[in-house]
Amino acid sequence: MPEFETRVRVRYAETDQMGVVYHANYLVWMEVARVDWCREIGFDYRHMEAVDGVVIAVVEVTCRYLYPARFDDEIAIRIEAIESTSKLLKFRYDMRRASDGREICTAESMHLYLSKDRFRPIRLPEKYRAAFGVK
Amino acid sequence: MPEFETRVRVRYAETDQMGVVYHANYLVWMEVARVDWCREIGFDYRHMEAVDGVVIAVVEVTCRYLYPARFDDEIAIRIEAIESTSKLLKFRYDMRRASDGREICTAESMHLYLSKDRFRPIRLPEKYRAAFGVK
Amino acid sequence: MPEFETRVRVRYAETDQMGVVYHANYLVWMEVARVDWCREIGFDYRHMEAVDGVVIAVVEVTCRYLYPARFDDEIAIRIEAIESTSKLLKFRYDMRRASDGREICTAESMHLYLSKDRFRPIRLPEKYRAAFGVK
Amino acid sequence: MPEFETRVRVRYAETDQMGVVYHANYLVWMEVARVDWCREIGFDYRHMEAVDGVVIAVVEVTCRYLYPARFDDEIAIRIEAIESTSKLLKFRYDMRRASDGREICTAESMHLYLSKDRFRPIRLPEKYRAAFGVK
Repeated sequence: MPEFETRVRVRYAETDQMGVVYHANYLVWMEVARVDWCREIGFDYRHMEAVDGVVIAVVEVTCRYLYPARFDDEIAIRIEAIESTSKLLKFRYDMRRASDGREICTAESMHLYLSKDRFRPIRLPEKYRAAFGVK
Repeated sequence: MPEFETRVRVRYAETDQMGVVYHANYLVWMEVARVDWCREIGFDYRHMEAVDGVVIAVVEVTCRYLYPARFDDEIAIRIEAIESTSKLLKFRYDMRRASDGREICTAESMHLYLSKDRFRPIRLPEKYRAAFGVK
Repeated sequence: MPEFETRVRVRYAETDQMGVVYHANYLVWMEVARVDWCREIGFDYRHMEAVDGVVIAVVEVTCRYLYPARFDDEIAIRIEAIESTSKLLKFRYDMRRASDGREICTAESMHLYLSKDRFRPIRLPEKYRAAFGVK
Repeated sequence: MPEFETRVRVRYAETDQMGVVYHANYLVWMEVARVDWCREIGFDYRHMEAVDGVVIAVVEVTCRYLYPARFDDEIAIRIEAIESTSKLLKFRYDMRRASDGREICTAESMHLYLSKDRFRPIRLPEKYRAAFGVK
């Protein structure tokens, strides 16, 4: 499971009156990174949700805000799957200002596979396990 | 169809680096006003969506920003249904700072009734028409 | 520092295509709870930011999502300051569906006092310390 | 003032429980398009706000929602300045699903130049007028 990097550019909408990015938006960027990571490993998240009825639900997230990001900054998000079983998935994130590598945020998230209709924990369908590095 | 007023308090998350409310958030407040208006006329929007499979989709919106709203301001939103047929619904909104009545935004929105599954225009179910003032 | 409870009603805008509240929005609610908590202890956050040039920045947040919140649910947020010094402030949150007490999320956040202009750590102004329970 | 096209990919956070993009998010994309348009004409919005103390405030916006955008869709936004004077700026937007050109939204926005500190209408600084096509 190699590390993967994706980029977002800070939107005006994402700033607050402190003049920096509002802290909840980092969670949205983490989701953008997860979706891009899925695409990178050859996996279409939208497809799994629509066809297999499996959703990847966030069950825990921790964010440490180290330095403020600002409007129009380009942010490089490195994402790494640090645990991957048929039941759960954990990611670690490292967000840096692309212009100078300044570290702005580190984070982790934990996810469970749930059935889309009843929100019950299920196992990742067999066909996806290799891509997700499940042993 | 009497006018109805609801209130929201500006969240920090809703401000941007200009120090005022980011303009897209007024559309969210308009939706809060519509849901409260529905409750006021004895109609449960969540129920209609879940049980009848009818969604009220926004098809057009116009907003005029007159004066900036700021963090922690209480905003009084007056909402009035200005057209209501079995196919569509139009609202007019007037938003004022509650503390002094300063007008901050006027807006209109137009909505169509759609089937939840196929997003096709449908007619408002008979049982809801009286509450919605459909003649 | 007594516990305090505030309430929010889930907005349509806060849901995602899973049919539940998008997880980043809980951080916005936590901020609503903090602002209401400040008001409760007789402290005007907006004033401190504007007049004293002090901002309360989020430096770390952890959220555990236990059960999904849905559109139009009323959410009761209990907030408690679990550490309060002249340099930092920590909160614990417990969010429940108001209708039946179902626990949906627990969270913690840590904050530093920063100067508004240079984003440097500063001490909470003397005049606010009693209200914040700083010994 | 040539037309310009920019692209966004729909984020999960931007969907709602209808399974489509929440309508307020189109205004955020319009802002992304304006910022990219500024960059294209060799103009740094962040710079003007920070150095010249001029903000470009939204004073009116109209959106017509033609077809729903969905999670992970790539959206092509064409933006065109349809009026540009030293006092105001008007844009027209055309948003299409990139995969097949399906039109999803058309919109217009009107903006005034304001002083950042007092929010009073001012004229666009002389040095920017050529780039903005002001005659």
